[in-house]
Amino acid sequence: MNQQKIFVQMALHSWNTQLARAEKIFSSFSEAAFYLPVAPGKNRVIYLYGHLAAYHDALKETLGIGKRTEPEFAAIFLQNPDDSDAVMPSITELKKYWELVHSELNELFANTSEDDWFKRHNAMTDEDFEKDPSRNRLSVLLNRANHIAYHIGQVILVNPGNS
Amino acid sequence: MNQQKIFVQMALHSWNTQLARAEKIFSSFSEAAFYLPVAPGKNRVIYLYGHLAAYHDALKETLGIGKRTEPEFAAIFLQNPDDSDAVMPSITELKKYWELVHSELNELFANTSEDDWFKRHNAMTDEDFEKDPSRNRLSVLLNRANHIAYHIGQVILVNPGNS
Repeated sequence: MNQQKIFVQMALHSWNTQLARAEKIFSSFSEAAFYLPVAPGKNRVIYLYGHLAAYHDALKETLGIGKRTEPEFAAIFLQNPDDSDAVMPSITELKKYWELVHSELNELFANTSEDDWFKRHNAMTDEDFEKDPSRNRLSVLLNRANHIAYHIGQVILVNPGNS
Repeated sequence: MNQQKIFVQMALHSWNTQLARAEKIFSSFSEAAFYLPVAPGKNRVIYLYGHLAAYHDALKETLGIGKRTEPEFAAIFLQNPDDSDAVMPSITELKKYWELVHSELNELFANTSEDDWFKRHNAMTDEDFEKDPSRNRLSVLLNRANHIAYHIGQVILVNPGNS
């Protein structure tokens, strides 16, 4: 196996591990538990679920490999903090959105060559990339894996059976 | 820059970013805040601080590049859950421990060659490594960066000024 391929496998493994862990936890929650905050006065599970899905929807554009499916979700889940007065999509809608975004990413990743993973992402200029080639698409994926882990650490605090 | 070097930089960047973020948050806490739980009935900040330091102390052995400084901390911070009746080291002692572990790791990492990062870690056999060379030392570092992010997501829930 060539080394470039090993790196890509390692980064995808990190992403896939965190994603699978998130999916396992979210799928253990009752619908009512989605409306619980992770700690008193903090974000609710529904917000973090939509936040991760919308952030990963936008990841296609950050990587420059696709377009967002639901750009209008950015206002609720990315540009604003959780707000229990905001009109949120239903859990059923959000689950569909999550599935769609991640199955699309899965397919896009499968079609991204090793060379393409080491190209610059859309959030930086050619000039900056020339100076620091470690800031490539794969580094965005590593960052997003950490971001999932960060929020898993929070949703795990909620008792899934609570209502 | 060769690709192996780029990937080592990426993984170290991921680790350093999460570590710096953790240090910034822990250093913002008053001594009293270290004794607060991250959510009602959950781990206290002091436990998570000691847990990360002890896990990173053990990381030297997992990577096969050094020995643990305080193996006796494993019982309190790794093998058992948080227990408010347990006798814990003071915050001053834990801060010294944290500094020591991370400055040592920093030096060890600086002296680890790119080739060495791609060797197998001590938690797997030669045979397994032959089958999957992506399970190398660098993959352990990526995993530990995710682990820091997971606990940052929790300690960030505590108001640092609370006492």
